[in-house]
Amino acid sequence: MDKLSELRPIFYPRALAVVGVSRDERKFGGLFLKALLDFGFKGKIYPVNPAGGEILGLKTYPSVRDIPGPVDLAAIMVPAALVPAALEDCLAKGVKGAEVFTSGFAETGDERARALERELTRIAGRGIRIVGPNCFGIYCPGSGLTLLPGGNFPRESGPVAFITQSGGHAVEFAWEARGRGFSFSKVISYGNGCDLNESDLLEYMAQDDETKIVAMYIEGPREGRRFAQLVRELAPRKPVIIWKAGLTRIGERAVHSHTASLGGEEAVWDALFKQTAAVPVHSLEELADTVLGLLHLPASTGRRVGVIGGGGGVSVAAADACDRVGLDVPPFDGDVQQRLREILPAVGTSLRNPVDIGVPLVRAQAFEQVLESVASADCVDTIIATQAMFHVLGGTFGPPPGKRERFIQGLVETPARVRDRSGKPIVIVLPVGGDELKMVEAEKGRREIRDQYLSMGIPFYPTLERAARAVANVATYYAKVG
Amino acid sequence: MDKLSELRPIFYPRALAVVGVSRDERKFGGLFLKALLDFGFKGKIYPVNPAGGEILGLKTYPSVRDIPGPVDLAAIMVPAALVPAALEDCLAKGVKGAEVFTSGFAETGDERARALERELTRIAGRGIRIVGPNCFGIYCPGSGLTLLPGGNFPRESGPVAFITQSGGHAVEFAWEARGRGFSFSKVISYGNGCDLNESDLLEYMAQDDETKIVAMYIEGPREGRRFAQLVRELAPRKPVIIWKAGLTRIGERAVHSHTASLGGEEAVWDALFKQTAAVPVHSLEELADTVLGLLHLPASTGRRVGVIGGGGGVSVAAADACDRVGLDVPPFDGDVQQRLREILPAVGTSLRNPVDIGVPLVRAQAFEQVLESVASADCVDTIIATQAMFHVLGGTFGPPPGKRERFIQGLVETPARVRDRSGKPIVIVLPVGGDELKMVEAEKGRREIRDQYLSMGIPFYPTLERAARAVANVATYYAKVG
Repeated sequence: MDKLSELRPIFYPRALAVVGVSRDERKFGGLFLKALLDFGFKGKIYPVNPAGGEILGLKTYPSVRDIPGPVDLAAIMVPAALVPAALEDCLAKGVKGAEVFTSGFAETGDERARALERELTRIAGRGIRIVGPNCFGIYCPGSGLTLLPGGNFPRESGPVAFITQSGGHAVEFAWEARGRGFSFSKVISYGNGCDLNESDLLEYMAQDDETKIVAMYIEGPREGRRFAQLVRELAPRKPVIIWKAGLTRIGERAVHSHTASLGGEEAVWDALFKQTAAVPVHSLEELADTVLGLLHLPASTGRRVGVIGGGGGVSVAAADACDRVGLDVPPFDGDVQQRLREILPAVGTSLRNPVDIGVPLVRAQAFEQVLESVASADCVDTIIATQAMFHVLGGTFGPPPGKRERFIQGLVETPARVRDRSGKPIVIVLPVGGDELKMVEAEKGRREIRDQYLSMGIPFYPTLERAARAVANVATYYAKVG
Repeated sequence: MDKLSELRPIFYPRALAVVGVSRDERKFGGLFLKALLDFGFKGKIYPVNPAGGEILGLKTYPSVRDIPGPVDLAAIMVPAALVPAALEDCLAKGVKGAEVFTSGFAETGDERARALERELTRIAGRGIRIVGPNCFGIYCPGSGLTLLPGGNFPRESGPVAFITQSGGHAVEFAWEARGRGFSFSKVISYGNGCDLNESDLLEYMAQDDETKIVAMYIEGPREGRRFAQLVRELAPRKPVIIWKAGLTRIGERAVHSHTASLGGEEAVWDALFKQTAAVPVHSLEELADTVLGLLHLPASTGRRVGVIGGGGGVSVAAADACDRVGLDVPPFDGDVQQRLREILPAVGTSLRNPVDIGVPLVRAQAFEQVLESVASADCVDTIIATQAMFHVLGGTFGPPPGKRERFIQGLVETPARVRDRSGKPIVIVLPVGGDELKMVEAEKGRREIRDQYLSMGIPFYPTLERAARAVANVATYYAKVG
């Protein structure tokens, strides 16, 4: 069976049994039920509680076997020792899949707990697919399924899938995405991966039309060879971004007590990233930065960048940061320098690349001309421009209060126009510029500007370093997939 | 003459001539005058304008020579070609120092401009010390002197000196410091450094009692040997943190068009950092992070860290991040693990190090016990604890709205107490946790919490990666100065 059909009952269950619900709404079972109701789960919900009664207005059933209608998925949160029996009930009922939230399996390092996890794997082999144990389960806006802690996630679907061994990262990444303006097709926290593992889930995402980009957090894959083969095939078609944790000595030890995974040698991973178009990243931040870049930047995004900043020090820092991540900042030829000379004053500026416009910001018209000039350079594939808007938002530079909005608006509308005319991708850096408590209004303004950029498909980053790294990751991806 | 006496008229001028003021208050001269008046410059101000007249209620003088009283410092912003004549006037008047804001000297790469800069150096040799050219000058809260763009800087003095070739970085770093709760003794943007260079300024800071920590942004030092000797002598007494820019190939080129400095070879700088206790950093962010650490962390801050986080993925990322910057995360012995076992549930947690408390946050009492247990470990010098307060501030975890404040307050007061009892330094990580526009209130809450931590001398960082790097920098410093 293809993965799409096989896992459909798990991602789009028509009916869900929640196993391990007490009458106390503040316990995990109750919180999860409430989250499902709030989030708007589209199927039927059957709470299971041997003590009977009602919870949140829903009738409970003593066992999964007692549920009247068919059940596609079971969310299981009974104590570890009781999980096998709950799964047996699911098998008897014909339930297709289970997400086992319960911890206390192989990750404890205890031999009995490891044996218990092996038992789950054996049960899975008899006809039920398991997500977990030791996980937060599945978030799928399309079916209204949400992760264990609920978390008030966005209702809208989007093009990004996140496959993660860490439930905490699942929640954090979903939070992070809100500020970056992207949404998810699916987020799966699969914990110890006793049955469904990263390879199964990647195979599903390869077939899932809703998913355009796959982000992954992996502690240790179960089937290395199969995983590498899947990545090799998929990455040219849909970007696969992998945060492989536990590659350091100390990290590997931490991985072992988190999901009982074997960390895997760095050399093996280096080879995977060399031989495939998968993009390696090293933090949640870089994962989000790279997703954002891949969502908005075209295949023509290359390593030869034109950099625009205000102030010589900013330009030097930009040059260093670009060089460190392997971007090139080629000097402009005489023609481009001449064009810039006609726009910018001769002193206090630099016209070579990086371009130093001499002040934190110039007016929209001059900014547009500078962008046009840099975009006209044959040696430039991609443009990174820093806009120190915090100076205007904080009132230390630029026009007086009444004229600030128009000044900013003019600047914000410029890059998309130049991008569309020149065909060259533009990335904007919007520094926070000081985060004193009383400057929180300026931060609000910065987020508004950022959201406007996102709506125009212009990726933004808070620092040049992060912009440079994201551009380098995107350029490397497109260079590989040709 | 000792540097303190020699440069006193520059940092604490009793009278300041502002040379290059038109009657237009919106031009640089006018803006600078207004900034001085707003900031509260404590000496006399004499605007110089050949056209005569008044500006901002101040009488102007045709030339520095025409000023009636004595003048200590001149701020010069006439066009480059007129700077030598202005300096001659200053010499004739007996002015002790000049900050030359004007650009258009060696940094242009033009031979005539380079010759003009050499002329400034020659004039300086005849008895006036010059800061600049191509700079933003001096910020010294103690005398009420502020940088060229004014920038509404804090009025209070503090223990940090910042010596920088970039005026932009001077302004940005001063902004950045506000959110970190530290202030400056002096900030000097010295641009091309045609006379007073990093060595002179470092020598001054060595003698300046107000300065306890020296931060530097250097593109290329003029007197390498002298500089190395000064750093060697000073660093054991006052931390010297150096951001050397232009160490990459592209960065070096950018340095040349910014301040006409020679970048200098990486090997030379590696040797400096190896042979002295100077702390190398690679961005403005890391500079601020390290200053913050050195301000608050004691000499006992070591590389063996105990890490506390909520969630296994967070712990794994923490372990990787620590390992990458050379921190050790030693596993706890049985006793410490036993103590932790009595506080935390057996499943969903990890008790080895990093400690995974299993949920984003635990109540203050449990948090205190966890901190105490980790502090009791002989193998731990320093503690890094992540507090995912954004979950409570955003309302997705923890107590209901009415009880949030007390819950948070309890947590915030805990680390300083444990630090004081155990004598072990504690660093807090406060993640932003999503920066959606509508979450700006949560960001305000985060800044309030952060400011409380700062008032208790607990350094905070927004990410574990940054906390780990700052701790590593501080630990390296103290290991060197023994």
